Amino acid sequence: MNEVKHTLKDVAEKAGVSLTTVSRVINKRGYFSKATEARIFAAMKELNYYPNSVARSLSGKKTKLIGVILTNTHNPFNAELLEKIETELFNREYKTIIANSLDNPQKERSYISLLQSNQVDGLITASHNTIINDYHQLTLPVVSFDRYFGSHIPTVSSDNFLGGQTAAKVLLEGGARRLLLFSGEISDTNPTSDRMNGFMDICLKRKIVPEIQGVPSDATSNFRKMLIHQAITQHHPDGIMCTDDATALLVMRELKQLNLRIPSDVQVVGYDGSDFILQTFPELSTIVQPLDDLAKTMVNLLLNKIDQPDVLQERQYIFPITFHRGTTTKFIDTE
Amino acid sequence: MNEVKHTLKDVAEKAGVSLTTVSRVINKRGYFSKATEARIFAAMKELNYYPNSVARSLSGKKTKLIGVILTNTHNPFNAELLEKIETELFNREYKTIIANSLDNPQKERSYISLLQSNQVDGLITASHNTIINDYHQLTLPVVSFDRYFGSHIPTVSSDNFLGGQTAAKVLLEGGARRLLLFSGEISDTNPTSDRMNGFMDICLKRKIVPEIQGVPSDATSNFRKMLIHQAITQHHPDGIMCTDDATALLVMRELKQLNLRIPSDVQVVGYDGSDFILQTFPELSTIVQPLDDLAKTMVNLLLNKIDQPDVLQERQYIFPITFHRGTTTKFIDTE
Repeated sequence: MNEVKHTLKDVAEKAGVSLTTVSRVINKRGYFSKATEARIFAAMKELNYYPNSVARSLSGKKTKLIGVILTNTHNPFNAELLEKIETELFNREYKTIIANSLDNPQKERSYISLLQSNQVDGLITASHNTIINDYHQLTLPVVSFDRYFGSHIPTVSSDNFLGGQTAAKVLLEGGARRLLLFSGEISDTNPTSDRMNGFMDICLKRKIVPEIQGVPSDATSNFRKMLIHQAITQHHPDGIMCTDDATALLVMRELKQLNLRIPSDVQVVGYDGSDFILQTFPELSTIVQPLDDLAKTMVNLLLNKIDQPDVLQERQYIFPITFHRGTTTKFIDTE
Repeated sequence: MNEVKHTLKDVAEKAGVSLTTVSRVINKRGYFSKATEARIFAAMKELNYYPNSVARSLSGKKTKLIGVILTNTHNPFNAELLEKIETELFNREYKTIIANSLDNPQKERSYISLLQSNQVDGLITASHNTIINDYHQLTLPVVSFDRYFGSHIPTVSSDNFLGGQTAAKVLLEGGARRLLLFSGEISDTNPTSDRMNGFMDICLKRKIVPEIQGVPSDATSNFRKMLIHQAITQHHPDGIMCTDDATALLVMRELKQLNLRIPSDVQVVGYDGSDFILQTFPELSTIVQPLDDLAKTMVNLLLNKIDQPDVLQERQYIFPITFHRGTTTKFIDTE
């Protein structure tokens, strides 16, 4: 279902001015008053009319630029996802504009409006800010990673529910009974919350109630460390799942400082399995997302959408995960 | 010293056609033969004439886009540098196009030509490919990180020589005598080779000849691990410097697998000190580059150059480094 696309004429009518005046304001040529300009901009905003993108879509001219919105690039998983998306886009003769939201809704909103109004052919978004309405208003093709937007924006993700289930099974079969989950996100609307749901599903089937501690990704490292320290000393877990590997590394540090042995005292399972982590910390047992598949699929879906806007796409593309057996868990046979 | 800027007329003369024909070809309007087109493109290439950027510079119109060329984003230092550059540019109302060369000269060359010909106001390059000539031909403002290009492109870097000296001093004062250096780059033309030069400087003053092993960043992880394994088992070092922290982490793994204790059997010093490494592996002693200063300076220099092309800039901006004391070295007092 596409939204109605408004024309320059609609803007002129809404603002109560002539077409020529609208054209003057948009092209910043000739005389017009500040008041007229403000009225026209208000009308454009109301009608969700972005002159450049519309002009471009009318002329069929492409910028060959794609915007990629991430929360950050300092998380190794995000850094690798970006590198793979950028390489795929380069192979298809597109260039990549990187936009880190840094969990700042204003920065993300500002990027969306900038990108929409003048420069990109499409967007890939993997950010987690709750400014979903801004995305709904977009007339640009968008593909999302790990986040639901609605019917017109396909979501690509790994099987987060299965990932959470697998982590719980691994810990339980290793003998853990006091389970603790560190989750980067506690929210119903994002697929990543399915990591928690899958984890809970297995726990409750075994009549175990795990503790859950949120560790917001936008908090400072020291704040995150404090939350981790408090949860461990309070709950005395013997099995911990983290919804990302960066948090798992902080948890392992904290356990060491508390003189708790891994895995004999406490088992740990992470999530993501970026190449960097797999190469540098193969000892960390973790749920591995198929980075190559995810990046390729997002690029393919987006470029197909740009080239053939009317072809229907699935709403969700869910890729299988794998379990990387390290030495931070005790048993491996989870089947 | 600026290069001569050629005009459309020069292209027409070189190609032996009229100005109108050149204009037709560039704008892809009206009739022209394939042969004419080829001749005009050849003349443009020879004169290093890029129509869009020239047209833009004549009209004074800016794209508000900056290209950032890195070798990769999977190295944590690069990922953080990119995030900081992107944030600085965003604060100045510029957007960032990310281009990973992946140590592929063809990809880097292709990016440079794409970025030059149609879309960016300037370039920040931190890539290490040896295609310096391509950069020399650029008429765009360019700022470089950790790489020399010549008089018209300023280089921003940390004090690599002092960093190398500091690492050698730390290892020697911890009692090491059989030193081994793992260097990502063995080349005379890049500032990063000063890490090696500084290291050698101190060693030779103490009449110690270190072993040097290149570990190319574009090699696969397994190949890099093999080089590290061979060098350690062959030279039996008691002190190791790595010119980046990612390599230092691989070295620490290898030492563990060889049942060598850190720091009692072998001391290790890394280089970079990204936030991720400092937070996740504070035990690694490393030379810390001032990431914030580096990113801010590059953005400031570039935007100044764009706004005031004729203001002279320094050729080099060298920032002090600091030593992060971890537990992979024995002593700390290097002054």
